[in-house]
Amino acid sequence: MKVYDIAIVGAGAAGMTAALYALRAHKTVIIFEQTTFGGQIINTHKIENYPAAPSISGVDFAKNLKTQVESFGGEFEFSSAEKIDKTPEGFKIFTSDNKTFLSKTVILANGSAERRLGLDGEERLIGRGISYCATCDGGFFKDKIVAVYGGGNTALYSALYLANIAKTVFLIIRRDKFRAEPHLVKAAESTKNIEIVKNSIISSLSGDERLTAITLSVTDPKTSKKTERFLPLDGLFVSIGRVPNNEIFKNLVTLDEQGYIKSDESCQTSTPGVFCAGDTRAKTLHQLVTATSDGAVAATAAIEFLNSAQ
Amino acid sequence: MKVYDIAIVGAGAAGMTAALYALRAHKTVIIFEQTTFGGQIINTHKIENYPAAPSISGVDFAKNLKTQVESFGGEFEFSSAEKIDKTPEGFKIFTSDNKTFLSKTVILANGSAERRLGLDGEERLIGRGISYCATCDGGFFKDKIVAVYGGGNTALYSALYLANIAKTVFLIIRRDKFRAEPHLVKAAESTKNIEIVKNSIISSLSGDERLTAITLSVTDPKTSKKTERFLPLDGLFVSIGRVPNNEIFKNLVTLDEQGYIKSDESCQTSTPGVFCAGDTRAKTLHQLVTATSDGAVAATAAIEFLNSAQ
Repeated sequence: MKVYDIAIVGAGAAGMTAALYALRAHKTVIIFEQTTFGGQIINTHKIENYPAAPSISGVDFAKNLKTQVESFGGEFEFSSAEKIDKTPEGFKIFTSDNKTFLSKTVILANGSAERRLGLDGEERLIGRGISYCATCDGGFFKDKIVAVYGGGNTALYSALYLANIAKTVFLIIRRDKFRAEPHLVKAAESTKNIEIVKNSIISSLSGDERLTAITLSVTDPKTSKKTERFLPLDGLFVSIGRVPNNEIFKNLVTLDEQGYIKSDESCQTSTPGVFCAGDTRAKTLHQLVTATSDGAVAATAAIEFLNSAQ
Repeated sequence: MKVYDIAIVGAGAAGMTAALYALRAHKTVIIFEQTTFGGQIINTHKIENYPAAPSISGVDFAKNLKTQVESFGGEFEFSSAEKIDKTPEGFKIFTSDNKTFLSKTVILANGSAERRLGLDGEERLIGRGISYCATCDGGFFKDKIVAVYGGGNTALYSALYLANIAKTVFLIIRRDKFRAEPHLVKAAESTKNIEIVKNSIISSLSGDERLTAITLSVTDPKTSKKTERFLPLDGLFVSIGRVPNNEIFKNLVTLDEQGYIKSDESCQTSTPGVFCAGDTRAKTLHQLVTATSDGAVAATAAIEFLNSAQ
C-alpha cells in the first residue's frame, strides 16, 4: 500500500493551505473532503477582510485556492475520513467509502459548524440578514438595526463590535444572566446603542428575500408567563456556539472541553505526527486568515517532522 | 491632542492587516511607516504560497493591501516611531519627525530584517539567485544546485526542505560544528543530496544578471591554513539569522533572547494594551500568511481590549 507523507482531512482554507505548503516541499499529499473545496468560506457572499484580496466572493476564493493547489499536484479523495488509527506502519485512515489509506503524518483540518437556531427559513436567510460572524459580516450593517443572539463571550464581543457600526444592537439572551465575563457585560450595559433583552428565545424568523424581523418568546421571570414580541431587524447574528465534529478523533488526539483539538502554537497535537489547523483547532480567533496561517504552520511542522525522522 | 484607538507601527503585511481589521470595527487608527507600504514582501518577485492569490508579485500584493486598507479610511504617518511611552493619558508615540501622537492601544508590527552577508553584489542578486527564505523561494530551484549558508535550526530545516526539490544542496557552515539540534544534523548527514561543507566562509559572490558561483575561504581545522574554493551555484540561501529592531521598545515590552517581542497566542505582549504582530513577534514560523494572521489576531485583541475598557 502506498504510504503518503501527509494526509490532510478537509479541503477548506486550512487544509488547502497545508496542501499548498506540503506540495511545494515536494511531499506526497492526499486530501480527504466529504463535500466540496473551500469549506465554510463558500457560504460567505463577499470577503472583505482577507488581506490583499479585496471583495472576493467565498466561492471565488475557494476556486483560486483549488487552482493554486492543483498546480502543484496533490491527490483528492472525495469521501470523509471516518477513523484514523496509529499503527506501526503509519497512520491508517478509513474512509466513508470503505477505503483505507496509509500516511506518515496527518493534518486534521476538518473545520467546525456554527450551531444553528433550527428554525424554518434559517438556511434560506443565511447571508441575507442572518450571520454567524460579526467580525466577518458586521461591516455590511452600518447604521442598521441588528440583534445578537447569545450570552457568551463571543456574543458579547460581537455586540460590542457591532455597536461601533450599527445604529442599534439588540443583545438577546435566553436566560436572565450572561455566561460572558463580567467586564464584557458591564461594557455592553454601558454602551448606549446596545439594548439588552433577557429571558427571550427566538421562536420564528420573518422575511422572504431578506430577514425582516424575528419573533421572541419572552418569559416573565417573576410569573413565568410567556408573551410574544415582534422585533423588526436588518440583521441577526447568531452566536450560540459552534459545533466541532471531532468525536471520531478523540482516541487519536486530545480535545478541549468544547471538543476542539488541543495543540501548541506550531499546531502539534498531543500525538506526534498529528497536526491540526483551522476551525477544528482550539484557539482565540477563528477567521479565514488564521485558518490559512494554521495550514502553513501545520504543514511546515509536518514537513519538519518528516525531515527529522529521515 | 487627538487620542487614537489603535496606533500601528509598521505598514507591512501584519500592520496593514491589523489596520484592516481595526478600521472595519470602526476604530480610529494611525499607522506609522518609515519607508513604504508592504514591508519586506515587496522584495519578493513572485509569491507562490499566499493562499488563493497564485503568482502575485510582492509589489502587487502590497498595492492590493493598500487599496483595501484605504477603502476603509485610516491615517498614515510617514515617519518612524522612535519611542513609545506609557502615560496616564495613553501611549505617547514620538516620531523621527519630532511629532507626538497619543493612542489608547499600540500594535507593534515593525518587522525584522534578514542578516545580510555584507558582500559586494549581494543587494543586486537578491531574488536573482540569492534568497533568505527556503520556504518562500525553494520551489524555484527544482533539480538545480543550491547552497544553504548557516548552521542553526533554520538553516538545517532549509537544507532538508531544499533537498526535496533541488538536485544538490551544499550546506555551508562557518565552524566545524552545527548550532542546530542533533536530530536535524543527523537527518542532514543521512540525506544523499546534501553535501556538508565545514569551516568555510563565503568571501565573494559571482554573477551579474544572476548568481553563478560563490567563493569560499576554507580553513583547515588541523593546520589553520586557509584555501579558496570556487563553487558554481544556481541558488544561495543565506540563513545566518534575522535582526529584529526592537531595542527602542525594550522598556515598553519584554523581548526574547534574540530580540523578538514576546506575546501569547492572542498577540498580547507583557504590557496590557500593547500587542505585536508579524516578523517582530517571537513565534515558530515567520511567513506572509502568518504575518497577516497575527495582524488580524492582534487587532481583534486590541478591539476587545478597547471594548472591555469602555
